[in-house]
Amino acid sequence: MPLVVQKYGGSSLADAESIKRVARRIVDTRKAGNQVCVVVSAMGDTTDELLELADAVTPSAPERELDMLLTAGERMSMALVSMAIANLGDSAMSFTGSQAGVITDDVHGKARIIDVTPGRITEALADGHIVIVAGFQGVSQNTKEITTLGRGGSDTTAVALAAALDADVCEIYTDVDGIFTADPRIVPSAHKIDQISNEEMQEMAASGAKVLMLRCVEYARRFNLPIHVRSSFSYREGTWVHPAEGEEDVEAPIIAGVAHDRSEAKITVVGVKDTPGSAAAIFNLISAQQVNIDMIVQNVSAVATGRTDVSFTLPKTDGQRAVQALQDAKGDLGFESLQYDDQIGKVSLVGSGMRSHPGVSATLFQALADAGINIEMISTSEIRVSVVTKGDLLDDAVRAIHTAFGLDSADGEAVVYGGTGR
Amino acid sequence: MPLVVQKYGGSSLADAESIKRVARRIVDTRKAGNQVCVVVSAMGDTTDELLELADAVTPSAPERELDMLLTAGERMSMALVSMAIANLGDSAMSFTGSQAGVITDDVHGKARIIDVTPGRITEALADGHIVIVAGFQGVSQNTKEITTLGRGGSDTTAVALAAALDADVCEIYTDVDGIFTADPRIVPSAHKIDQISNEEMQEMAASGAKVLMLRCVEYARRFNLPIHVRSSFSYREGTWVHPAEGEEDVEAPIIAGVAHDRSEAKITVVGVKDTPGSAAAIFNLISAQQVNIDMIVQNVSAVATGRTDVSFTLPKTDGQRAVQALQDAKGDLGFESLQYDDQIGKVSLVGSGMRSHPGVSATLFQALADAGINIEMISTSEIRVSVVTKGDLLDDAVRAIHTAFGLDSADGEAVVYGGTGR
Repeated sequence: MPLVVQKYGGSSLADAESIKRVARRIVDTRKAGNQVCVVVSAMGDTTDELLELADAVTPSAPERELDMLLTAGERMSMALVSMAIANLGDSAMSFTGSQAGVITDDVHGKARIIDVTPGRITEALADGHIVIVAGFQGVSQNTKEITTLGRGGSDTTAVALAAALDADVCEIYTDVDGIFTADPRIVPSAHKIDQISNEEMQEMAASGAKVLMLRCVEYARRFNLPIHVRSSFSYREGTWVHPAEGEEDVEAPIIAGVAHDRSEAKITVVGVKDTPGSAAAIFNLISAQQVNIDMIVQNVSAVATGRTDVSFTLPKTDGQRAVQALQDAKGDLGFESLQYDDQIGKVSLVGSGMRSHPGVSATLFQALADAGINIEMISTSEIRVSVVTKGDLLDDAVRAIHTAFGLDSADGEAVVYGGTGR
Repeated sequence: MPLVVQKYGGSSLADAESIKRVARRIVDTRKAGNQVCVVVSAMGDTTDELLELADAVTPSAPERELDMLLTAGERMSMALVSMAIANLGDSAMSFTGSQAGVITDDVHGKARIIDVTPGRITEALADGHIVIVAGFQGVSQNTKEITTLGRGGSDTTAVALAAALDADVCEIYTDVDGIFTADPRIVPSAHKIDQISNEEMQEMAASGAKVLMLRCVEYARRFNLPIHVRSSFSYREGTWVHPAEGEEDVEAPIIAGVAHDRSEAKITVVGVKDTPGSAAAIFNLISAQQVNIDMIVQNVSAVATGRTDVSFTLPKTDGQRAVQALQDAKGDLGFESLQYDDQIGKVSLVGSGMRSHPGVSATLFQALADAGINIEMISTSEIRVSVVTKGDLLDDAVRAIHTAFGLDSADGEAVVYGGTGR
């Protein structure tokens, strides 16, 4: 019998009616001849409400206790979903992350899954039950403490369980129809992507597409697992994220979509000595602050001064900390001044066809030039081009690129103008 | 270092401010030189809110899933209390019932504790932490399922943990000052009892006194553990429940207090054949319905008919079920008719001094007679006299007895009129 793992997010479980609707959907999947293992998030605003309670008690909650508090959220939703399934005459058993064998490291608040030992799940499925598992949580391998997986953790739980159970598919239910060629709030003509490779999905997620978190996509690739992202509010097909690697699909569109990200800031270190080790010293310092750097640009040195400028982007939330660390080390690093800009945006074009189709970058730059948008930084991978623009021009940039690559029509093949390649 | 186990109920943990107040109290106990292990109930109305959610999803929730849902309540409060303690600069660790080693049988919704293996608690206490444990919950020995202990379960958790940890005292915090000689809402002159024997407390609890549940008191007696029932809203001494058994304390008052109970109904089986086995047949039938019977009275048989009446009391909630079962078996049992009365009340006088002071029953009956209150049923134990009255006369009965035994003044010794004993 095929085994389907489904994951329902908080927006699909907002209240008792939503829970009953989801239960109906789960029972339908079971009746269609599948074994079903379901991963649930906390209901609607539960997590926010629990965080408010914590805030009312202390401004700085110990992370162990915060995990203990937050994991109550999925415990509630999993029990309620099980009850709603029982009410439809089917049999469901709920399991916490710990009971489901989700073993993590011991980093509270953002633990990583290091093993899944789903003995109880397998047994319950074999006994004919539908299984409901609390997402977002696990138990630490060494200390046996309750942990949470951080943002998007329930998706990761679902993919990890699907891999451990050797499921046929992992369905991620959300409140949109799937992955879109761009954010439809910015690009009204954006359309749902039917098929996307895992590799492309990773670049999309890393570039700011919010429907799937990067860790979950990485996990699915590692275990060669297909993900089906779809809406819990309709029965339409969503977006299939294929794990296939190495197989070139000649029918696949050259461009998958356009992602954008407003969460980064840019720091420019002005007047760095252009000597070996200068840049390394800067990034060692930033790294010691546990700050993840995204893009880095170093200008050509001005011959007259022997000095250069180094710019990099980083999460806005880490911005002030990084600036402070650099200021404190100004004497040692020997730069002239710092510039900090958190009014930037990043737009990324993703598509595995870039490998074999030259000219993508040139087309992208031309589209932005035609729209009067200045490019502040550029970075590329084999299947992605990202540029940083002024924040207030980001929406225009997304639209210009979406149009330039023929993504505005649902059946449109990406258009690639000739050019000199990137 | 002395070890204190404290238990705080939901009314002491109603909101963030209450939680901070309780945390202050716990830290004070620690600073006074004690190791502290705290058992918490769910916050205020949390359990009711969770039950409402379950009701909105299904009219008949599976008990396993209901336990999973309800245990989220204590999980939330224990994490919040721990956070509030951390905010005061002390260190607390919270543990679920399962983590605390509270092992139960596998009866969901009203599990019994069969063992406590508090290894993690002992370790955390030895490491200098204050320990917070979720009350009301455990894990079943055979199936490793999450269970709840039923009404008053957090008190039982506290006493069981105190016994397993060999604590010096178990403090039960509530929203009243302790155990009273009668319910102050009925008897304004009722006063707090400073000391009461465990044996007396068991009779009080079994007779309807609500501050401590019977199971918790039984547990404390078994493990020879003193309980201190007190208010979380003041620093006054409450009521000490002493485990001492066999030691006659000549200074102890003869009468401890007056308890009452409105939760019972009375069934009279009229015209039962007065032959061996008739009563047994009735009570076997009732027992098969899982109904607990309290008092039983059988009238003297009328010689002319060879028939008698049998009356018994049982929880109102089981009344209709028992009546139906009896009606269904009317042919087999051979009685004439049934009377059902749920407008009754039971008043009980409890005191270990009854053993050595005759005339208690006579004084009680006289007091009720003087107040014009008819007695419908009587039952006694070595240290208790209970009578059933009409429900609307129960308050008068409680007051009359409270006065007759000199309990109206706080320093009053119980007055026992001469008589022929009971």
